[in-house]
This record gives sequence, structure tokens and C-alpha cells, in this order.
Amino acid sequence: MLTQKQFDGVVAFHGHLCPGLAFGMRVGEWAIEQFGCAEDEEVVAVVETDMCSVDAIQFLLGCTFGKGNFIFLDYGKNAYSFFRRNDGKNARLMTRGGLVTDLREEQNKLAPDDTEARHQIQHKMIDRIMDAKFEDIFTITPAQIAMPETARIHNSIRCGNCGEQVMATRIEEINGNRLCIPCRKKLL
Amino acid sequence: MLTQKQFDGVVAFHGHLCPGLAFGMRVGEWAIEQFGCAEDEEVVAVVETDMCSVDAIQFLLGCTFGKGNFIFLDYGKNAYSFFRRNDGKNARLMTRGGLVTDLREEQNKLAPDDTEARHQIQHKMIDRIMDAKFEDIFTITPAQIAMPETARIHNSIRCGNCGEQVMATRIEEINGNRLCIPCRKKLL
Repeated sequence: MLTQKQFDGVVAFHGHLCPGLAFGMRVGEWAIEQFGCAEDEEVVAVVETDMCSVDAIQFLLGCTFGKGNFIFLDYGKNAYSFFRRNDGKNARLMTRGGLVTDLREEQNKLAPDDTEARHQIQHKMIDRIMDAKFEDIFTITPAQIAMPETARIHNSIRCGNCGEQVMATRIEEINGNRLCIPCRKKLL
Repeated sequence: MLTQKQFDGVVAFHGHLCPGLAFGMRVGEWAIEQFGCAEDEEVVAVVETDMCSVDAIQFLLGCTFGKGNFIFLDYGKNAYSFFRRNDGKNARLMTRGGLVTDLREEQNKLAPDDTEARHQIQHKMIDRIMDAKFEDIFTITPAQIAMPETARIHNSIRCGNCGEQVMATRIEEINGNRLCIPCRKKLL
């Protein structure tokens, strides 16, 4: 179970509590138990969504966008894979769905300005997600992809058009001119 | 200036203190003064790098990957744009570069196992970044792109092959079968 400090930290990081974030907390709770946290890059998260849930994973697991151990695949699925570098342990969690469908339908019937009722249903959703058993929230299978490579640091090169410093791997030479991506786009 | 609590929070979120994170803290410090923090989606950050610095921006500004107000453009530039939705205020910060070049060169000359000297130089870099004037760290110009649209929620559709729930915008119909991205890739 998450500590109150972890719970409060996630909500402060995300800015508010919502059902998506609660869902991410349950994913994070499970993943911490199974994989531990990443102080550096020991654990890698691969998320197939960019919804609220992933903020809980960033905050709880130490798999953050800026550390290179948080990979986003834009598949539009509520699925989350974890890899541990030292032993290759991995898993993919996929939402079962249906856990709060009845409440969502109830919410959809509300008048747009019925804020109080909307809040009440949101809280019911959050409570149900936080209290559910892991196996009722998601299925657990091995990861479907290989473990991602570690993050690398590259040299910088100056773009021949705008003059800005650019990571070498994002520069391309066109007609003898080394150009960054936005400057290449302007040429097209 | 950042409070000790903000500083400690950023380091805890990222997992360690490094020159890149320090740089991000200075960007965040400036952006908070100019734009305020985003409890919801009032402020949007567009980052052109996925290096350490962006974790400071996520944590300090409330512009997080899971909230839809943190947009990544994979341009390989240490550049950060901010937009405020209510009045359209915007700015782009681009690293001047050169602030710690001498220290980096010093570091590159060290023997790989000279961890102590490496640490000392890292600390010198961090101190210099934290103490520098904003105008010595980055240039400030108007944003070069339009304000990004707000995040939207889409319905889910079941993939006709794997059976997983997928955000409607990530499904494509092929030969009468509605398929998710990974299942489409397998067909190619």
C-alpha cells in the first residue's frame, strides 16, 4: 500500500486527484513492490498512453521523462510495461476496463452544471479504484517489447541556418548545410 | 529564487542532482515568476529536449507529461517555451551555452575512475548554474510556434486483433478490421 506521503506527493505533482491518477497509483503501487524504485535508471517504464495515470508512475517509480527511463509509445492504450536492468525482470500491465463503467455512465447523465454530483461520482470512482484488488484492475503478462536501451549523451552541433546548438543526432546535412529539424521543415 | 522545499522536491523527483537538473531549475524559476504554476492546464510547456532539465520544469511548473500541458518536440535543443492560456503570454528560452564549457573540458581530461574529482567538478558546475544571472544562461524570445491545443479525452474502441481497448484516434481500419498500432505493425 502507498504511504500517505506518497499519495500526497503524487497529487501535488499532478495538481489534482482524479480517477486516472488513482489508477496510476495502483499501477505504481504494484510496480514498486515488484521492481523497486529507480534512483538512477535501474527500472524503466514504457507507457502506451499519456493520460493522467503516467504522472503517478513518474513520481512513484522514479521513471521520469527527463531521466531517460520513461518511454512513451503513442498507442492510446492504458498499458504500462516495466523492466529491471540488473536481471531483465519485466511485466506489462493492461487495464481490464469496466471497473467504473457504471459510474461513468451515471456521470454522463448529469447536467453539465451539476458540479456537486459530478464531484461525488468522481470520489466514488477514486475510492473504488483505490480499494480494488490488483487482479480486478489489470491483467499482468510479460512485456511485449525488448528492454529499451539506456539513455545516451550526444555532442552538440550548431545549425547552419538558425545558429542554435542541436544534439548531433537531430542534425541532417542538406546541400552541404547542417540543419536542425525546424529549419529543415521550413525548407520543405 | 526557489525555496529549499522546491529545490529538494525537484531533486527527490529526479532522483539525483546534476548540472542538467540545475539548469532546468533556473528555467523553472524564471517561468514561475513570469507565468505562475499550472494547477490544471493554465500554463503549457513545450520542451525541445528530453534531458534532465525537463524534470525540474515538470515538478516546478505543474506542466507534466500526464496532464497534457507538457509537449515534447524531439528537436534535440535545450529550448523551452511557455504559454499562458488566459492571456496568450508566451516566451521561448534557449540556452546560450558556454556557461560551464571550461569545467566540462576539465572533466573530460580526468581518468574514468577519478570519481572524487568528477564529483567536485559536477558541484562547481551546479553552483555556477545556480548562481548565474538569467541573461547569462539563456536568451528569451517570443515562442516560435502557436499555443498548443488543450488535451482531449477520446472514446475507446476494441482492437479487432488483440482485443485490447484503444483510444479511438489510434485505431485504423484495414480490410474492414479496426486495428491498434502494434497490430498494424505486425501486418507490415
